[in-house]
Amino acid sequence: MGNNRADTLEAFLRQRKDLVDEALDAFLPPEDTPPESIFKAVRYSLFAGGKRLRPILAVAAAEICGAGAADVLPVACALEMIHTYSLIHDDLPAMDDDDYRRGRPTSHRVFGEAVAILAGDALLTEAFRLAARRDLMPGTPPETIVTVIGEIAEAAGFFGMIAGQVADIAAEGKPADEKTLAFIHSRKTERLITVSLRAGALIAGAGEDILKDLTEYGRRIGLAFQISDDILNVESSAAVLGKGTGSDAARGKLTYPALYGLEASREKARLLVEEAVRCLTALGEKADPLRKLAYFIVQRKS
Amino acid sequence: MGNNRADTLEAFLRQRKDLVDEALDAFLPPEDTPPESIFKAVRYSLFAGGKRLRPILAVAAAEICGAGAADVLPVACALEMIHTYSLIHDDLPAMDDDDYRRGRPTSHRVFGEAVAILAGDALLTEAFRLAARRDLMPGTPPETIVTVIGEIAEAAGFFGMIAGQVADIAAEGKPADEKTLAFIHSRKTERLITVSLRAGALIAGAGEDILKDLTEYGRRIGLAFQISDDILNVESSAAVLGKGTGSDAARGKLTYPALYGLEASREKARLLVEEAVRCLTALGEKADPLRKLAYFIVQRKS
Repeated sequence: MGNNRADTLEAFLRQRKDLVDEALDAFLPPEDTPPESIFKAVRYSLFAGGKRLRPILAVAAAEICGAGAADVLPVACALEMIHTYSLIHDDLPAMDDDDYRRGRPTSHRVFGEAVAILAGDALLTEAFRLAARRDLMPGTPPETIVTVIGEIAEAAGFFGMIAGQVADIAAEGKPADEKTLAFIHSRKTERLITVSLRAGALIAGAGEDILKDLTEYGRRIGLAFQISDDILNVESSAAVLGKGTGSDAARGKLTYPALYGLEASREKARLLVEEAVRCLTALGEKADPLRKLAYFIVQRKS
Repeated sequence: MGNNRADTLEAFLRQRKDLVDEALDAFLPPEDTPPESIFKAVRYSLFAGGKRLRPILAVAAAEICGAGAADVLPVACALEMIHTYSLIHDDLPAMDDDDYRRGRPTSHRVFGEAVAILAGDALLTEAFRLAARRDLMPGTPPETIVTVIGEIAEAAGFFGMIAGQVADIAAEGKPADEKTLAFIHSRKTERLITVSLRAGALIAGAGEDILKDLTEYGRRIGLAFQISDDILNVESSAAVLGKGTGSDAARGKLTYPALYGLEASREKARLLVEEAVRCLTALGEKADPLRKLAYFIVQRKS
């Protein structure tokens, strides 16, 4: 990524990622806090080199709507905790049974299944504690905090992310089915990405019009992100991706490439990104980081 | 339980339990909602004949402080969901590996481990969505809702219930240790019981004095409840308890009877209950249900 546009996006992403990493570190107790193993496991997965896509989207949305990053960092970190919990639980032997994630052994491989399950539970619970910390968000009206908590819980819950994971597991090894795939993708990935944007905008006090635009943008990049994840699972090498590749196919997972083929999947992701960018028209130049992020999602190599 | 006092308590408990059961049923989608298996599993564990102790404590505290049961039912049900999620996950093969709970096969035995893990995750997440539903609690100020969500998350999280479970697992088979046992009992059981009372009182708009009394009462009945659970695990038959008994000892679990013996444990629970009742003095007659509940906790047979 040598051109100026990408350099600027890289700087934008790195700056926000650093903010999120620092905040996560500050919000969490040290890993030797008793009982020790839980905080070690929580930190192991949380600081495993994630892209911080969801918190960056929350911060970017807040900034576009006139708020500062600090206002939204507790909720942004809560979103990353929920994402991380879902990865720990998805990797468990009873679920996807993955040994590697981001180039390192998965949580249950290092700490055992019991601690991995509890580390996931702890991250999910702590996310809501963090999102409810009014002392960290003195400028945010409590009714906004309640709305944000409710929307995040809905996106992560049994109508959202969990429904997607349940449907994903149920679909393994069954005949490909367009409707089921759309359900899995929207629930498993898109909902939490969309709510990340909404949370940032809500905390910034955005009006209905902007919220609607960001929601429509989020739906499209959320789906594009999941499609590009499916493509990377087929194409990329384990060395680049840091986890097993080709694992979806081996497991008979219902994915975009499995149903439509690689080329049609790439085209679908490209179209979604173009649509996503069009949703930002009314927001003008200040939405540029989100435009670049949308293109980045389908161009990334890991 | 043939005397009048117990009859009155029984009626009190049954009425509140019915309210909680109806509310839980109303708040949850039907079990054939897609993806089907998750709602089946959620309902299976949630309607397995639990005593509803935590929601009843929330309702009772709210009533003592002048609120109606309806004001607190969403949060009361959220507390029961969190309790139920913790049981599902504690029973998993990687944790306590229990086959029976309340006389029925445990969730993972019926639905498989993957769905059991996800059902627990779903209940935990849904608890926070429910607690954030301002439409169901129109009379409760949003700042109170945020406070309640934060306190519940703290009680259930890695400083509370999860810390207790981690320490419990870590202590298995190790030499008995008074300090560790106190840590496990307070975190694993007492915190969520105490926050149930606090949540009810907070929603009712109780002042600091009442909150303090109810908190001190909660700490003591919470510990008494866990001690009596440990005693029942030694004494009761599987038929009465509906789960394996003697399982703590077989597993080398750190419990009150293991450390102090049965008689000293009974005495300790009795003392805690007497202390708990003394914490209610300033609340007068209206706190009678909580007094009876305290005695009930150490007299129950299951």
